Amino acid sequence: MKVAIIFGSKSDTSKMKNAANILKEFNVEYKAFVLSAHRVPEELSKTLRNLEDDGYECIIAGAGLAAHLPGVIASQTILPVIGVPIDAAVNGLDALLAIVQMPKPIPVATVAINNSFNAGMLAIQILALKYPQVKEQLIEYRKNMKKQFIEENSEGVEL
Amino acid sequence: MKVAIIFGSKSDTSKMKNAANILKEFNVEYKAFVLSAHRVPEELSKTLRNLEDDGYECIIAGAGLAAHLPGVIASQTILPVIGVPIDAAVNGLDALLAIVQMPKPIPVATVAINNSFNAGMLAIQILALKYPQVKEQLIEYRKNMKKQFIEENSEGVEL
Amino acid sequence: MKVAIIFGSKSDTSKMKNAANILKEFNVEYKAFVLSAHRVPEELSKTLRNLEDDGYECIIAGAGLAAHLPGVIASQTILPVIGVPIDAAVNGLDALLAIVQMPKPIPVATVAINNSFNAGMLAIQILALKYPQVKEQLIEYRKNMKKQFIEENSEGVEL
Amino acid sequence: MKVAIIFGSKSDTSKMKNAANILKEFNVEYKAFVLSAHRVPEELSKTLRNLEDDGYECIIAGAGLAAHLPGVIASQTILPVIGVPIDAAVNGLDALLAIVQMPKPIPVATVAINNSFNAGMLAIQILALKYPQVKEQLIEYRKNMKKQFIEENSEGVEL
Amino acid sequence: MKVAIIFGSKSDTSKMKNAANILKEFNVEYKAFVLSAHRVPEELSKTLRNLEDDGYECIIAGAGLAAHLPGVIASQTILPVIGVPIDAAVNGLDALLAIVQMPKPIPVATVAINNSFNAGMLAIQILALKYPQVKEQLIEYRKNMKKQFIEENSEGVEL
Amino acid sequence: MKVAIIFGSKSDTSKMKNAANILKEFNVEYKAFVLSAHRVPEELSKTLRNLEDDGYECIIAGAGLAAHLPGVIASQTILPVIGVPIDAAVNGLDALLAIVQMPKPIPVATVAINNSFNAGMLAIQILALKYPQVKEQLIEYRKNMKKQFIEENSEGVEL
Amino acid sequence: MKVAIIFGSKSDTSKMKNAANILKEFNVEYKAFVLSAHRVPEELSKTLRNLEDDGYECIIAGAGLAAHLPGVIASQTILPVIGVPIDAAVNGLDALLAIVQMPKPIPVATVAINNSFNAGMLAIQILALKYPQVKEQLIEYRKNMKKQFIEENSEGVEL
Amino acid sequence: MKVAIIFGSKSDTSKMKNAANILKEFNVEYKAFVLSAHRVPEELSKTLRNLEDDGYECIIAGAGLAAHLPGVIASQTILPVIGVPIDAAVNGLDALLAIVQMPKPIPVATVAINNSFNAGMLAIQILALKYPQVKEQLIEYRKNMKKQFIEENSEGVEL
Repeated sequence: MKVAIIFGSKSDTSKMKNAANILKEFNVEYKAFVLSAHRVPEELSKTLRNLEDDGYECIIAGAGLAAHLPGVIASQTILPVIGVPIDAAVNGLDALLAIVQMPKPIPVATVAINNSFNAGMLAIQILALKYPQVKEQLIEYRKNMKKQFIEENSEGVEL
Repeated sequence: MKVAIIFGSKSDTSKMKNAANILKEFNVEYKAFVLSAHRVPEELSKTLRNLEDDGYECIIAGAGLAAHLPGVIASQTILPVIGVPIDAAVNGLDALLAIVQMPKPIPVATVAINNSFNAGMLAIQILALKYPQVKEQLIEYRKNMKKQFIEENSEGVEL
Repeated sequence: MKVAIIFGSKSDTSKMKNAANILKEFNVEYKAFVLSAHRVPEELSKTLRNLEDDGYECIIAGAGLAAHLPGVIASQTILPVIGVPIDAAVNGLDALLAIVQMPKPIPVATVAINNSFNAGMLAIQILALKYPQVKEQLIEYRKNMKKQFIEENSEGVEL
Repeated sequence: MKVAIIFGSKSDTSKMKNAANILKEFNVEYKAFVLSAHRVPEELSKTLRNLEDDGYECIIAGAGLAAHLPGVIASQTILPVIGVPIDAAVNGLDALLAIVQMPKPIPVATVAINNSFNAGMLAIQILALKYPQVKEQLIEYRKNMKKQFIEENSEGVEL
Repeated sequence: MKVAIIFGSKSDTSKMKNAANILKEFNVEYKAFVLSAHRVPEELSKTLRNLEDDGYECIIAGAGLAAHLPGVIASQTILPVIGVPIDAAVNGLDALLAIVQMPKPIPVATVAINNSFNAGMLAIQILALKYPQVKEQLIEYRKNMKKQFIEENSEGVEL
Repeated sequence: MKVAIIFGSKSDTSKMKNAANILKEFNVEYKAFVLSAHRVPEELSKTLRNLEDDGYECIIAGAGLAAHLPGVIASQTILPVIGVPIDAAVNGLDALLAIVQMPKPIPVATVAINNSFNAGMLAIQILALKYPQVKEQLIEYRKNMKKQFIEENSEGVEL
Repeated sequence: MKVAIIFGSKSDTSKMKNAANILKEFNVEYKAFVLSAHRVPEELSKTLRNLEDDGYECIIAGAGLAAHLPGVIASQTILPVIGVPIDAAVNGLDALLAIVQMPKPIPVATVAINNSFNAGMLAIQILALKYPQVKEQLIEYRKNMKKQFIEENSEGVEL
Repeated sequence: MKVAIIFGSKSDTSKMKNAANILKEFNVEYKAFVLSAHRVPEELSKTLRNLEDDGYECIIAGAGLAAHLPGVIASQTILPVIGVPIDAAVNGLDALLAIVQMPKPIPVATVAINNSFNAGMLAIQILALKYPQVKEQLIEYRKNMKKQFIEENSEGVEL
């Protein structure tokens, strides 16, 4: 049960960290790769060929600007690819459109701009279909989220 | 191995049909539901409570305008929810943003505007993680797609 | 004569405060609720069921990103719902479209991005139809606003 | 219990008709006025001064392009003003922004682009606060809407 | 030969200052008015009625958000009205569209977002048609601008 | 008292016709020129040099796409230049931004997308400052416009 | 002296034809390839490896939606790549941003939406640097274009 | 083998520096010119007439707002013109559209917003067609880029 997190530059590390954090919380093994669809396309392809053999089941890919990385990955694997648009210009709208508007038959499961947390969570929801312990944890997580939300706001809020 | 396809109005049937078509091609059982987050929220909730018990493993949700349906569904299930923005105004940008910009911790796996085919394909890629026969079919599908693409274009194109 | 102010996170408190301030100025009772359409949908529904019984007459709802909260509330109440788009990404255009583009027959009365003051004022204008003292205050408020504006600018401005 | 429907040109009649239809269904008296903030500002002001005296309680205003009409009306009345952005260029985004982005303290309750139906419905929800028979009708309307929705879709949908 | 500069709030003074500066440089008399189309519509109308009598020949109007001020002024005068969209939200695109998209037959001569300097310059170009001394100054100004530009960059630039 | 109307292609003739029509109605002499900033820049410059000598007092320029024509003209004349953005792609937003966002000190008086009528009207308002008979006609025109508007709508409108 | 024209689907043939037409007019050899970055990435790579050896000197690539093709090509060749955004959704803004916003150090020379003619012309301008006969033809083409423009419009235009 | 870098104001020097840096790294001679299409059109034309004679082979032009400079240059030369949209308002979308949307037959090879590095790189790719030593350097540069990328990321990244 492993998830790969791929992004194009070490400078995006902090923006992708939330994906790793939530995977860690669910005890899902993950590995991060810095790989660029434009700078090292062959390395990217080589890595992708190994991921399925190595038992990876989901790929999270973050990219900004003309964000090709998630789509290029999706075209070279049958694993579900989750795309995170990173805001590097025009409020991230370029990255969002370059990731989400994938033509058939190669989808990228796109989440909100800069929201790598939700990418990790989506990976967990996908894995939960197969792994009962993840499913249990997820049910628990949701319960706790609600409980915590209610507790935190139990005393109301002063406006 | 069942997928639910939910949308808010019978008038969107033709736009969601491609999701069904590709699921059919992969022998994935599916059922379509016309349910609205705004018109019948209780019916929607009731249906969602049954989906997991009935063995559904993925939900495809299509919506236009202030497209709340996919996100509202995602908040009430732990199943992966795939959102299809439908163009009903401003070129579908309202639906895209209303679906993809989900805050943590409730993601919606968003695909391209009007592209329900890719929603079906993403569901298949998710199911392939768990069901070997789907995985085999998917590998075959990709192979055939490439073969067909090459064949169709083998004689080049006249410009 | 009570107004409910609902928003999804304590971190939005400062952005919603202006709604409360103007209600206070008009002696309109209000209560703030932190409730999320995605995190605690059942709590939200429960709260909404009580609001009408408790005599609330108007609901102000603020949300950012894929801002479903106002529309989800509107689908569960017959009270007028006033939506405040909060700028959390893409200059608040995602929240604006996700709130204002509600399909029939469930409207949300949308005001300007981040402008919770106007949400409070709209609530007051609505209440003024029913409560003569609010109407009188409103007429007075408008008169004073004009008077104050004229006084403040009576000496002209140096460019 | 009267609602005024104001728009700037007879050519918009068909786009504003849905507001009238739903008001009619609720037995809410209404009158339509063709008045332009730019062409006949004095006539507009004169009409507005009479509306309150004549017992109007809500104003629906539709406009396209640099859609000033709803805001200009709102600045001259204390009645709640409901704005309908009409798509006459750039998909109606110009009208939407020109209506919804009203600065404090003059709000316009904005509904979706071209959605005059929702404007009528919002007027009804506002009137329901004061008029028990409207409230009852509205509760009934919502119930019927749900019932009808469920009936229409009771046999499911074939994809 | 007088130009009126009108804007809705003292807080925009610094943004409108460049219009005054260039008018001053051309010895064109001007007066600044803080007047709001929404807050004091009657005062605005009264002022506008006097402007033509007082010999004003051009009106510069700056506004942000749902920027109605320039269009509302244009509908009440036959003087040319120059509109300056002020960036107060969504990068000023709301103000730009709300000013420039005026329907026929009431134009507003719109200049770039936040560019009150160009508004002043446009006023000068308009006045130059009638006043030979302004025309001469303008020809001189253009000559000097070119000369200064060439001088400033005569030594080239090091990259 | 002459106005030049310049646009880049005969195919835009119908879109610019409304400018001519209103000028004709005001007995303002005009001449149309098909000239392109990109195809025949020298011819454009030559023509512009003659326009002032020939007594032209205002230039209306229409352009689509990367609409440089109005700005290029403005940089070569001291006459007021009125720009008409023509919708040839992306709803005319490219032309609008390429015309209105002129940097200092070269303004283009921009009107609404495709609205050459308002360009003609703005030219008339500018000429009215200098020519009393135009001013009189303009005052008359406005009066008639109002009268006609009121007459046309005197019987109200049926919704 | 050969140019490759690559696009992802036979259905785009008509949109890319203008690139071929202008190349033909300049006697520049070209070949069209239907190749998809997502469907047949390996075939694309193989073709690209041959292009340089076969003496191609410029690549024109057209794509719509999440238009990765031009950028993916650019990452695998040192030849100049000219990108044509094709309008398949949201007025082609998705394709434009997905092509033009390429990060360093892999540029794509982007031309206007749907404007494959300009892509062909840009290829010609690039080849003209190396091939004197192309340069001569280009100088002649520009002369003729101007001559033809002037002739076509020599009799003026009637508005 | 010389490249001209032209921009409209010394204040853009830092934004255009990356173009010079990469040209320097490739030993490509370049010269920077501060020239404005609007302020000194004649000087611009004069400079452009000399550039071809002086052996320049490529022109990089950077501009913001209504960014006419690259297109105006392209209309006066047969050299390839590379346009850099500079973000001075609305996130640089005005400059992007004003540069990239050039009508036929005058293309501008547009690169990403603020990305003058890619403009320099595109010039190098164009020159590499003619100059074998540039081609060799470019092949080497790409190899090193890949090598360096792999080395820098060889130890993986910790998330």
